[in-house]
Amino acid sequence: MTHTALPTVEQWGVQEIVCPGFATGNPYMDYQIRGVFASESETVEAPGFYDGDGRYVVRFMPSHQGRYTYRVFGSFSHEEYSGSFQVTAPAPGVHGPVRVSDQYHFAYADGTRYMPVGTTCYVWHLQTPEIFERTLESLKTSPFNKIRFCVFPKDYDYNKNDPFTFPFEKAQPAPGERYGWDFTRFDPAYFRHLEKAIQRLCDIGVEADIIVLHPYDRWGFSRMPREVDQRYFRYLASRIAAYRNVWWSLANEYDLMPAKCEADWESCAAALKASDPYGRLMSIHNCFPFYDHTRPWVTHCCLQRQELYRSTELVDEWRERFGKPVIVDEMGYEGDIQHGWGNLTAEEVTRRFWEATVRGGYGGHGETYLNEKEILWWSHGDVLHGQSPARLQFLRDFLEALPAPLMRTAGSWDEVVGTAQGCTGEAAPFYLYYYSFMRPTFRDFRVPEGMAYQVEVIDTWNMTRTDCGVKEGSFRVPLPARQYVAVYLKRVR
Amino acid sequence: MTHTALPTVEQWGVQEIVCPGFATGNPYMDYQIRGVFASESETVEAPGFYDGDGRYVVRFMPSHQGRYTYRVFGSFSHEEYSGSFQVTAPAPGVHGPVRVSDQYHFAYADGTRYMPVGTTCYVWHLQTPEIFERTLESLKTSPFNKIRFCVFPKDYDYNKNDPFTFPFEKAQPAPGERYGWDFTRFDPAYFRHLEKAIQRLCDIGVEADIIVLHPYDRWGFSRMPREVDQRYFRYLASRIAAYRNVWWSLANEYDLMPAKCEADWESCAAALKASDPYGRLMSIHNCFPFYDHTRPWVTHCCLQRQELYRSTELVDEWRERFGKPVIVDEMGYEGDIQHGWGNLTAEEVTRRFWEATVRGGYGGHGETYLNEKEILWWSHGDVLHGQSPARLQFLRDFLEALPAPLMRTAGSWDEVVGTAQGCTGEAAPFYLYYYSFMRPTFRDFRVPEGMAYQVEVIDTWNMTRTDCGVKEGSFRVPLPARQYVAVYLKRVR
Repeated sequence: MTHTALPTVEQWGVQEIVCPGFATGNPYMDYQIRGVFASESETVEAPGFYDGDGRYVVRFMPSHQGRYTYRVFGSFSHEEYSGSFQVTAPAPGVHGPVRVSDQYHFAYADGTRYMPVGTTCYVWHLQTPEIFERTLESLKTSPFNKIRFCVFPKDYDYNKNDPFTFPFEKAQPAPGERYGWDFTRFDPAYFRHLEKAIQRLCDIGVEADIIVLHPYDRWGFSRMPREVDQRYFRYLASRIAAYRNVWWSLANEYDLMPAKCEADWESCAAALKASDPYGRLMSIHNCFPFYDHTRPWVTHCCLQRQELYRSTELVDEWRERFGKPVIVDEMGYEGDIQHGWGNLTAEEVTRRFWEATVRGGYGGHGETYLNEKEILWWSHGDVLHGQSPARLQFLRDFLEALPAPLMRTAGSWDEVVGTAQGCTGEAAPFYLYYYSFMRPTFRDFRVPEGMAYQVEVIDTWNMTRTDCGVKEGSFRVPLPARQYVAVYLKRVR
Repeated sequence: MTHTALPTVEQWGVQEIVCPGFATGNPYMDYQIRGVFASESETVEAPGFYDGDGRYVVRFMPSHQGRYTYRVFGSFSHEEYSGSFQVTAPAPGVHGPVRVSDQYHFAYADGTRYMPVGTTCYVWHLQTPEIFERTLESLKTSPFNKIRFCVFPKDYDYNKNDPFTFPFEKAQPAPGERYGWDFTRFDPAYFRHLEKAIQRLCDIGVEADIIVLHPYDRWGFSRMPREVDQRYFRYLASRIAAYRNVWWSLANEYDLMPAKCEADWESCAAALKASDPYGRLMSIHNCFPFYDHTRPWVTHCCLQRQELYRSTELVDEWRERFGKPVIVDEMGYEGDIQHGWGNLTAEEVTRRFWEATVRGGYGGHGETYLNEKEILWWSHGDVLHGQSPARLQFLRDFLEALPAPLMRTAGSWDEVVGTAQGCTGEAAPFYLYYYSFMRPTFRDFRVPEGMAYQVEVIDTWNMTRTDCGVKEGSFRVPLPARQYVAVYLKRVR
């Protein structure tokens, strides 16, 4: 039997439909393009975008396997375009986009649990090609399965360079302005480079937590008029929403942007949602006050700690307050720069991750070691210098082997106890006791009659797991009297 | 010219008048004795006590030099006794009792500043004579100028022994009771031993912070009837109030004593005050809720931290709340026992002390290292094993050389800044910037035009002070990118 050979795309891959269209006038402003994609399992309408040179593009991520048909239409052309393609099984290791599961946790579309161990390299993709490649290499061998970075260039300590190109076409600067932009015309090259970064991350299984707006700006991108913002949000979403690894972070430190008010953020969320048919994960990151993360468009809390002394110790409080997954993306960074948010020890970063984890939340990494070249991971990417990533890999390995997502349960005042989400009473499948900065020589435990637990002592800093055998009733577990130790009880009977 | 040779006592020493009296009946209950001591500068009426074997004693601490007369009277005898003595200059290094000065700080009676660097050895004096002597030796070479300890014996983890004698005469135990006491008869030997401990501490310049009641009890001393308590308070004060190094701590963890209510503590304070003509420092120590330290009899706040993660970081908050000096006597102890309050690193204890200090308060030390003999400093005294005492000596030396008491002033969010109490604006005589667990590679400073400051980098853990020269205007101070570093600016122009 012979079949007509259809174009193919993998499930959760990007199917791109490119059509010629009008190049006269200002195509970014004057014409629209949309696509409708349909299979037995779903029908998705996706906005397209003008990519320059008379090229119009619609991108689509199929959520199912099988045959899809599509129709592309709009004012961009007198023609309509249609066709069909075949969606094949994903490559091994591809699990689809990440979604919220179990209220406080995450899973890929195929149900595989996803435990974010994220890092931040704000403008890694806007550095040299060598740094771009080295960053990807670093990520490949790191524990990090998510990276936060900005669409726009960054102006801040240790990062004063211009990108190789800009998101808008240049124009004559207005009086008193250093830069001038034609905000009606995007530069597709800038966005193609962003997409390359997103795709390369996708290829190595790293989620791209895209920071849509941010305050570290000398070019004026943090104070564009609302209608420009709106066009930008729509253009950005129509270009990148189809990449399965995209998450939306409306802003970094939204509260440091005096030109923006709450209505701006709400309209930003609305515009992104309207142009994102996949309902990608969406949040907004604070410097001082948290945004109202109970807003329906907020899928998870992307938080910066608000105090100097407590950070992830407050995760359970925040989780209960917002009723959503909590990621403390800025708990302070490993490094030694002058700022207090960027000069933590690796031990403290590791401790903060475990504090977040045992409480049923997640941490976020960053690295800010001063060096002669002033290339700092948190801003530029490149290579990692710190000691926390190895410990975060150990944490991730531990988490991924757990039989269920963690949730805090009651414990003594001087321990944090995690158990399987949904288990409130005794006899849970496991308990994880974390002792943080304390260093007990031993701890006493008691499990209910008739049950038995395998006991392991976990040194979260030295990355060792020591089997202490199967225990019943009341028992004492000798501990190494060092900081950063946990005890893991796994039910075997 | 010849003078009659009068008995002499040093200023702030103890003058003891011993008189014979009735030994019939129960002298502890049946007879009273009082003394009135007068000089040109003061007249003090002091209660005396029965010391057994027909001996009645009145003790008196003269606050001034010169000639005193006294008169001793009461129902203890048909006789009255009187006489005179000469009060001479104190020995070198003796500065008198400690008082509150400048609202938040302390000074000796002669005006010398007193900066408490205290420790805790709850029942050191009730251990063997060898431990008793070794504890005093340890204190002599330690930074500690105050020690908290209990009048009554202690029943708690690692301390289950009986004392060599008891504060009351034994009696037949009541049904269901393990111990029986004749609460109408004290055992003077028990109190004489306590006084020996107080005097020996006084001899080496250590304040005796006396814990009058405490909950760690199997003998019944934590749940005596109120009239027994009242007699005990009066007896105790009449015996020891004259020792210049006595402070009153009404209770340790008052809130763990279910037999006591607020009225009991208030009557305890009133009874001690009534029997203490010197107005010794007085406080009461919590486990969970703080006592109301705004009560007029509370001279200073003797606090236990209430949270796992923050302790002395809250000192300025507490200082402002109570308007009195703050000593965080339990911030957690250096050690490795099973309990979270007793397994801190020396680094963390040192950090907590500096956090307290820069905020205008004080810390308190304790040591709980497990060892084969189960002799733990916090309970037994003996010898110190930890690494924090050397750092606390460094802190004490630094503090004693400061030109004025410390008070927190405004600073950046990621530093704690202390200055001379009373200096709120710029141009203070000194500033102390503390970076705690952070490890900046440098920090930038600015001092007002026309002024100049000597800059020192202080490594509070490695105990080094590095002179960085005299600086004006705006300047950068290179730092070692290690934790626990401070910068000290001392005005020179």
